[in-house]
Amino acid sequence: MFNLNKGDKKRIVIVGGGLGGLELAKRLEGSGMQVVVIDRFNFHTFPPLLYQVATAGLEESSISFPFRRLFKNDRDVIYRMAEARAVFPKLNILQTSIGKIEYDYLVLAAGTTTNFFGNANIEANAMPMKTVAEAMGLRNALLSNWERADTCATAEERQELLNIVVVGGGATGVEVAGALAQMKNHIFPSDYPDLDAKQMHIYLVEASDKLLAAMSPESSSKTKRFLEDMGVEVMFNKMVTDYCDYKVFMKDGSVIPTRTFIWVSGVKANHIDGIPNECIGRGFRIKVDSINRVEGFSNIFSIGDQCLQTSDPAYPNGHPQLAQVAIQQGRCLAENLKDMAAGKQNDVKPFIYNDLGSMATVGRNKAVADIGKFHSQGFVAWLLWLFVHLRSILGVRNKLIVFLNWLWSYITYDNSIRMIVYPTKSVIVREREERDKTVHWGEDLKQQQQEQQ
Amino acid sequence: MFNLNKGDKKRIVIVGGGLGGLELAKRLEGSGMQVVVIDRFNFHTFPPLLYQVATAGLEESSISFPFRRLFKNDRDVIYRMAEARAVFPKLNILQTSIGKIEYDYLVLAAGTTTNFFGNANIEANAMPMKTVAEAMGLRNALLSNWERADTCATAEERQELLNIVVVGGGATGVEVAGALAQMKNHIFPSDYPDLDAKQMHIYLVEASDKLLAAMSPESSSKTKRFLEDMGVEVMFNKMVTDYCDYKVFMKDGSVIPTRTFIWVSGVKANHIDGIPNECIGRGFRIKVDSINRVEGFSNIFSIGDQCLQTSDPAYPNGHPQLAQVAIQQGRCLAENLKDMAAGKQNDVKPFIYNDLGSMATVGRNKAVADIGKFHSQGFVAWLLWLFVHLRSILGVRNKLIVFLNWLWSYITYDNSIRMIVYPTKSVIVREREERDKTVHWGEDLKQQQQEQQ
Repeated sequence: MFNLNKGDKKRIVIVGGGLGGLELAKRLEGSGMQVVVIDRFNFHTFPPLLYQVATAGLEESSISFPFRRLFKNDRDVIYRMAEARAVFPKLNILQTSIGKIEYDYLVLAAGTTTNFFGNANIEANAMPMKTVAEAMGLRNALLSNWERADTCATAEERQELLNIVVVGGGATGVEVAGALAQMKNHIFPSDYPDLDAKQMHIYLVEASDKLLAAMSPESSSKTKRFLEDMGVEVMFNKMVTDYCDYKVFMKDGSVIPTRTFIWVSGVKANHIDGIPNECIGRGFRIKVDSINRVEGFSNIFSIGDQCLQTSDPAYPNGHPQLAQVAIQQGRCLAENLKDMAAGKQNDVKPFIYNDLGSMATVGRNKAVADIGKFHSQGFVAWLLWLFVHLRSILGVRNKLIVFLNWLWSYITYDNSIRMIVYPTKSVIVREREERDKTVHWGEDLKQQQQEQQ
Repeated sequence: MFNLNKGDKKRIVIVGGGLGGLELAKRLEGSGMQVVVIDRFNFHTFPPLLYQVATAGLEESSISFPFRRLFKNDRDVIYRMAEARAVFPKLNILQTSIGKIEYDYLVLAAGTTTNFFGNANIEANAMPMKTVAEAMGLRNALLSNWERADTCATAEERQELLNIVVVGGGATGVEVAGALAQMKNHIFPSDYPDLDAKQMHIYLVEASDKLLAAMSPESSSKTKRFLEDMGVEVMFNKMVTDYCDYKVFMKDGSVIPTRTFIWVSGVKANHIDGIPNECIGRGFRIKVDSINRVEGFSNIFSIGDQCLQTSDPAYPNGHPQLAQVAIQQGRCLAENLKDMAAGKQNDVKPFIYNDLGSMATVGRNKAVADIGKFHSQGFVAWLLWLFVHLRSILGVRNKLIVFLNWLWSYITYDNSIRMIVYPTKSVIVREREERDKTVHWGEDLKQQQQEQQ
């Protein structure tokens, strides 16, 4: 139950506290409306640095921020840990894992999830890297594979344990492959003196013929050179078709044995029941108009990676799924919602994306940045990357700790968080989770909605 | 498999990389012997600060240190992630989860585990706090109970979710109860404005009639006052007999409903097969002589919490199970082993514990310390506690990060790591763990040992 009373205020329910949802909520502080943010995690995550959590460079807590702390200054911004399950647009009700809530405005900002393109073997065995839990899981798996390599019985198993296959040559794939190469070069040899670092292969597998397809050709080709200099084996035009018996199979018949199979090859928008099929576009994204309103609805919106907006003249096929788009859409929608709630329909402005450029880091002193006409590859881009990302992390404490970790790794070549650890889950928590799965799914609401039709 | 060759060196196998085992291993660096350390975790933990991980004050990584990094400067100190299973003393072989290893000297330093005194309900439902995984699990459970309290349906469930019962009035119980009281007073009210902090009760349940039984009467009674000032309800002479339906039952008939049931009430030494029953003493500890040699064996030793040494004149019933005892025993045994290996049997010295005093912290500016005749309670003791613990944490990076976190919490009254997160466990890792459970348990060794008899 939400246990919430909104009085005579309008209520905005935001599904998802990612970069877009959080920006929107923060901008609505003090607006006189009640803002309810739901998220299945109790903390906001800064996704661009997940790869550093996965490669033991950063504590998970330094790229995370508890929602309740973020919203503690405005009693009208309310957080509840919950998963959205279905919208009942005719009733203006959202059904969630903790019950139903009425809304005046609903904003879907639930982002994307990993796309395994329907392959069950890949989905079961590959490790994605979209959440803090997955990044920590990847770190645990990587390190426990190395531990095992030191003690396993056969050369075949050792090779499977030492090979790493990263599928997907976008920013995440490039960044994680680069960070793994640094671990291979600087940490592995001293941590595992009884193993041969040369036996470890890091493959970056890309289906097209270039890395960082969204960036400039210079950045793309320089990235490849950076990675190869660090020892990453970049493979183009390779389509992964299956995974079984610890082997990655590709369309052209090639096979790579590995037990560290990282899948960062694509995303699809998160699904929510109740949004009609005709509103769903490319990549399962929800089609929205120029003010991020879901097509056919007056008070349901979607922002960020979850939505597909084709009204922006420069982006007729929709925006790229980037942090900046989500943040700017959140900012724009906040202003528009305030205007709408105040009855100033004429002040509502369409969203226009202001491209601030994009960047990716490959390793120590090595990054690429495209900012308007300014294209930079190398040390300057790397400094810029550090600065921009440090600035974006929420909270002074987190900034300090991330900075300290970066400085430390830079000086010592050491990724310190090399821990394999799974928190124990108490029986009481497990029982509750099991019960939650059987929670009432709004059959009564379906009935009610039909009667209204 | 250990895949190890010792050449003509003597090999010392150390089971457990806790405070005692680590001290021993570090002291044996450069001794000309091969030292093999096995531990089921890939990192050393600093146990005195586990309670701060459990209460969201510190990242788990800042009280942990990867073994491989600790031992990287001496190729003769070797770490393997493994669990010890059985000793075959006649064969000088240790059987572990990754296979068998021959030893010249064997040192059991595997510490203790939580003692539930045979109560299956308590063991299944109570949350212990002996490992990093358990401390993180406790943090997750505590925070998810609070989240749930905000949305649950009945007042009864809410009370169960808000009550906290800590069983055991030793240092860990006192410290965790104090830290929880601080969260209740400073974090809970702003994080959960829709809940009433007054509804939360923190009970510290102790079977005897005082807290910190090992410390001075002043420290003990002052601790009680500190805790009560902070809102902890201290209960003496209460024996917990059962837990069911989210209720703690006590011998005198009293019942406390709670879903946060913390058990820090006792420990028992970890068991290893092959050590005869007659060598096991009080608290399942392994009886050792004055040089920490297991009774009846010439080359098997035990140090730290796992052993029971009654030869020290000041401690005829054995030493208290404290960090300092383990560290000092590790240090003493290192010297003795070097002498033994060099054939200098006459230089071997019996262990005498040098009591440096003991301390416990209750909260902000509140701690108690007994150092010889010097007994202090309050701010000075608290500063001393901070200094001693900061000094003991391994590594400059960890020291810095812990210091930063402490400074931050002190200024802001904020425990920042309020995350509920369980790393995903990959299918490949799960499969391996399942297989490991069926690993060969040394039937052939049993046979071989019998034939030798």
